[in-house]
Amino acid sequence: MLGFENQFLCHVTNIRTLASVGKIMTTKEELSSEITAVGDRIRNMKLEKASKEALQPHIDQLVTLKKKLDEIIVAESKKEFDRTKLETVLRRRFFYAPAFDIYGGVSGLYDYGPPGCALQANILQLWRSHFILEEQMLEVDTTILTPYDVLHTSGHVDRFTDLMVKDKGNGNLYRADHLLENWLSAQIKDVKTDAKLKEEYSYVMTQVDNYDAKELGDILRKYNVKAPESGNDISEPEPFNLMFKTQIGPAEHDSKGRGFMRPETAQGQFTNFKKLYEYNNERMPFASAQIGKSFRNEISPRAGLLRVREFTMAEIEHYVHPNKKDHPRFREVENVIMSFLPASEQEKGVSSTIDMTIGEAVRSGMVNNETLGYFLARISLFLIKIGIKKERLRFRQHMSNEMAHYASDCWDAEIQSSYGWIECVGCADRSAYDLSNHTKRTGERLVAREKLDTPIQKNVIKPQFNKKEIGVIVDEIENMNECELKELKKSLETNQRAKVAGFEVSSDMVSIVETVETCYVDEYIPSVIEPSFGIGRIMYSLLEHSYYVRENDENRCVLSFPPVVAPVKCLVVPLSGHPSFPPFIYELCQLLRSKDISFQKDDSSSSVGKRYARNDEIGIPFGITVDFQTVKDKTVTLRERDSMSQVRIHMDQVANIVASLANATLSWNKVTETFPAFVEQEIDN
Amino acid sequence: MLGFENQFLCHVTNIRTLASVGKIMTTKEELSSEITAVGDRIRNMKLEKASKEALQPHIDQLVTLKKKLDEIIVAESKKEFDRTKLETVLRRRFFYAPAFDIYGGVSGLYDYGPPGCALQANILQLWRSHFILEEQMLEVDTTILTPYDVLHTSGHVDRFTDLMVKDKGNGNLYRADHLLENWLSAQIKDVKTDAKLKEEYSYVMTQVDNYDAKELGDILRKYNVKAPESGNDISEPEPFNLMFKTQIGPAEHDSKGRGFMRPETAQGQFTNFKKLYEYNNERMPFASAQIGKSFRNEISPRAGLLRVREFTMAEIEHYVHPNKKDHPRFREVENVIMSFLPASEQEKGVSSTIDMTIGEAVRSGMVNNETLGYFLARISLFLIKIGIKKERLRFRQHMSNEMAHYASDCWDAEIQSSYGWIECVGCADRSAYDLSNHTKRTGERLVAREKLDTPIQKNVIKPQFNKKEIGVIVDEIENMNECELKELKKSLETNQRAKVAGFEVSSDMVSIVETVETCYVDEYIPSVIEPSFGIGRIMYSLLEHSYYVRENDENRCVLSFPPVVAPVKCLVVPLSGHPSFPPFIYELCQLLRSKDISFQKDDSSSSVGKRYARNDEIGIPFGITVDFQTVKDKTVTLRERDSMSQVRIHMDQVANIVASLANATLSWNKVTETFPAFVEQEIDN
Repeated sequence: MLGFENQFLCHVTNIRTLASVGKIMTTKEELSSEITAVGDRIRNMKLEKASKEALQPHIDQLVTLKKKLDEIIVAESKKEFDRTKLETVLRRRFFYAPAFDIYGGVSGLYDYGPPGCALQANILQLWRSHFILEEQMLEVDTTILTPYDVLHTSGHVDRFTDLMVKDKGNGNLYRADHLLENWLSAQIKDVKTDAKLKEEYSYVMTQVDNYDAKELGDILRKYNVKAPESGNDISEPEPFNLMFKTQIGPAEHDSKGRGFMRPETAQGQFTNFKKLYEYNNERMPFASAQIGKSFRNEISPRAGLLRVREFTMAEIEHYVHPNKKDHPRFREVENVIMSFLPASEQEKGVSSTIDMTIGEAVRSGMVNNETLGYFLARISLFLIKIGIKKERLRFRQHMSNEMAHYASDCWDAEIQSSYGWIECVGCADRSAYDLSNHTKRTGERLVAREKLDTPIQKNVIKPQFNKKEIGVIVDEIENMNECELKELKKSLETNQRAKVAGFEVSSDMVSIVETVETCYVDEYIPSVIEPSFGIGRIMYSLLEHSYYVRENDENRCVLSFPPVVAPVKCLVVPLSGHPSFPPFIYELCQLLRSKDISFQKDDSSSSVGKRYARNDEIGIPFGITVDFQTVKDKTVTLRERDSMSQVRIHMDQVANIVASLANATLSWNKVTETFPAFVEQEIDN
Repeated sequence: MLGFENQFLCHVTNIRTLASVGKIMTTKEELSSEITAVGDRIRNMKLEKASKEALQPHIDQLVTLKKKLDEIIVAESKKEFDRTKLETVLRRRFFYAPAFDIYGGVSGLYDYGPPGCALQANILQLWRSHFILEEQMLEVDTTILTPYDVLHTSGHVDRFTDLMVKDKGNGNLYRADHLLENWLSAQIKDVKTDAKLKEEYSYVMTQVDNYDAKELGDILRKYNVKAPESGNDISEPEPFNLMFKTQIGPAEHDSKGRGFMRPETAQGQFTNFKKLYEYNNERMPFASAQIGKSFRNEISPRAGLLRVREFTMAEIEHYVHPNKKDHPRFREVENVIMSFLPASEQEKGVSSTIDMTIGEAVRSGMVNNETLGYFLARISLFLIKIGIKKERLRFRQHMSNEMAHYASDCWDAEIQSSYGWIECVGCADRSAYDLSNHTKRTGERLVAREKLDTPIQKNVIKPQFNKKEIGVIVDEIENMNECELKELKKSLETNQRAKVAGFEVSSDMVSIVETVETCYVDEYIPSVIEPSFGIGRIMYSLLEHSYYVRENDENRCVLSFPPVVAPVKCLVVPLSGHPSFPPFIYELCQLLRSKDISFQKDDSSSSVGKRYARNDEIGIPFGITVDFQTVKDKTVTLRERDSMSQVRIHMDQVANIVASLANATLSWNKVTETFPAFVEQEIDN
């Protein structure tokens, strides 16, 4: 969606380099659950209309608890999170790497190696099951190549831009807002900067996103900002369209062949609305969904996976009657508690979140409608399921100045990482904007129809032409909407003439008639509620959230993915290179394959401990060791990554157990209760 | 791969409009198995070195059986296959449709609707399990955007072209070879064409693929071929590069930003070879794999899904020692029988296939090596598993004139459809071509190393410089390969001088020394064996192979996908709109969801029979009906699509049963043996 234009601005409103919370401290967990309990109590009391006095002590308690929790989070943030170290692990284990780096690389392009690719595939698989299967959404796969006209209608040709300035000396190009932000933050950090100026700079910093080209140019000139590398003068800011252009077909300068690589997957869904509606037996509401690559020609991408030129998106378009935005399954999620940062708070300058259930959020009117609320809750459940930490997830509402004019409400799921709070999922109620525009442009009516139980009377306004010859004018008037017709009527009645399609039209030629018609069918352009996921950003956040270092050995890094998204589910290691092990390893591999479990065999000559450590770095949750006992009785050890605890289990059972652990239908606790512990130490030579 | 340049030429060598064989005639099946049995017998006799006389009667029998089978196939082909009818179904049920057709469409671009998208996803899921999981291949996800340099090195910038001619009047563009082919086939069909000329035209037709620009121009001029729509003169053929160009980054004319949308997924794998080799603990052989979109800017695409501008590929790059192409798991497939069309037969003008085991094919030398043979067999098993008909699948070897100069062997899996025999998978032994070129261009050594048990003596040729100043010349010489060095040596020894990098070099400045070195490590650029799948083509072929019309009702079309790839696994229908049914439907849906089974509910007001018929068109293999009996005892009927037989089953069991049927761990036969049949007729009002 065009929304991503705003969405993908990094809202770095709260940069804190948090220590990884791969292992959550118990006290923090205890505090969180206490806060939830007190919150519930207050809610119930409110429902029972308790007096203000009765409520006060509970509210005081809540405030104290929240303060304590904040202190712990701040303390954690002081344990410095070492991003460089994580990045070293990610590069070493080839989660991802700059694309074409043997050719010097291309900024903003990254390749996913085997663990990154598998992690992404598992996240997408879960996304499919959580959203598409659960709601029987209609998944489509539409083309990346998109003709000019479609993206002109959607507004991307005119408005999908960033402001760019040029180094007047060497021609280097910079994104204007980033250049100003970097300059401001350098000044703010500088001890020599006067306190009053610092205040001004801080204020300007909060406004950068709101400046247009002229305002940004004025500010850059006022502060005399120069090109950072050369110190040269810079040009005035100019809009740069962020779409990759290409030519479809062999005719080089044929305007019909002008096209782009799509900036989002949404337009392919909208343009197919009619077919999808028919496929759904013309039932409303329903949703379509698409997973696929989109492109954005960033001016000067940095920030790793968070700002790239090619990325995977997963987008849902939920079509709904504009006046019926309740949701039949809302009650299934209404008790989900989430952290909200509403527009009203941000406008007051507050950046602390409010925890409440989605039910309350909708009832209070903070979240516009049930369908939007339903999706916000489902997004929250999804992100937590794949391993995003609840306390580092918030839902931030768009303020009126960032929201598109047609949108009725918009929330971003922001995830905190060492880059700050980053928008990873946008969820907008886009009203009927896109379907209306495509309808208007193509004449293809992208509408839904509902039979009315009782017919309604509807005021209708229609042009009546007196002469048939005036083709262009007829076309223009027939394509007018109600408002435009009313305006034309007024003009004709007042002045006996009006301007249409460049021609002067008189009231002799056309008149506009208002009547009342009986309607048996309600025909409407559906509103669209759009949850839109940036998979790469979610994945990077998950990498940070999953990362920790073993307590007694700072060289042992672990990525503690939930088993269901872990890139590889199981490690298979022989204790040593002893010749009696390979047949058992072979049999084990066959067993795992037969259950479609992704596994990795590590029979290198390092110690078992070293091999486990190496594979902790790609987050393999379970490991099977074949040892001398295996040769005697076909039992193996099964190890869990985070606790490093091990059990002894028969080879015939182990594949089934790992399969159940991997799809989360069995917990490790249950396994340790059922099978004997194996206590031999990992030998770490 | 560059291979696809040839691969995606449609080899329309055997156009037959076959009747759909969705339901195979029993006699044909019997004949096939008889042929297999006789073939086996002959093979065994040969192994036991039977005499020619003893063999002859069996060979005669085999020839007779094959003739009978051919007759049946020809008879079937006369029952006309109605492509238009299938296409109507595919469009009506939104398997796929022209992209952006509300904007008039863009030729060569198609969108997949819900059933097409699900079918594709299921095929890819099975591909992952059959290839990637089974062999523990390293799956990657690399970028579509690719810089100029990479595709220049791979040869695509210079050679990924088609020849194009222009209508000199209106500027319309045509693919030159297709224009000639269409002209020739019109002349051949024309009754007025002289018999001798027809013979000439037929011969030229077989040669079209081999002509270069000049030859094609000569022929077009000789026959005075005109632009088909206007009758205008046409220009000389000129090469047109088939890659979509774009500019990466904001600098409009910066040559560093020149890029393309990839024409194949292979280069992203090759450029990451070093990281993948390290990820694999530097063990050889291994394979990488990638599934993703590729692009080809066709001059004038027709033929539906078979010739498109944007398509999904699945490519494997298997890296292997150039001299060790045996495969440890070859014995697991050596008895797989396949239909081969070797180069030698094609060169004799024969187009009938030879059935033999892949074991024999490799042993006889027809297939170059075990690894290549292993993949050919695995490809065959995969295609048959997803529902491609064995008798409409053949493996055609590239003839020497179509194979790239560096390839040691190449086979295409061709599938027969109403468009003829279409190449859907290419499997080439590309030797060390790509890795060598990237090594040469970037200086990054894309090599593998193996420790040698016994060191070997190796002849080494090296330059020795007498002066250090001559930088450019040193660089040039140090980058020379063995052959180039030998040539330089010769020139220096003969003439005391040679030309290097534009400079005159004398034997005083440099000498070339040949010595013997002891090597403890075998360093080599691996050979690559590449199976490369065109998923869209496979999918279209599968649609044709799965399509049939019910015997007693030509309006009832069925797509008989194997359950494992069927887009939707289960249909849920209430018998009627009776108010007692919805709670049971709701419960059923929850049960199916909990098992991750994709289902569709059809509670429209049509009769049950009509609803089943409608959903046969998207190939739903199983259907559950809730009727009045359900309200009494919670049993439902379960129906199988092809046999239309039904059983009565308890609601608590049905989700598990459908799950097992859908992943092919349970057969419908077994279900009918276990549960009571339900014999009530489908009411078809």
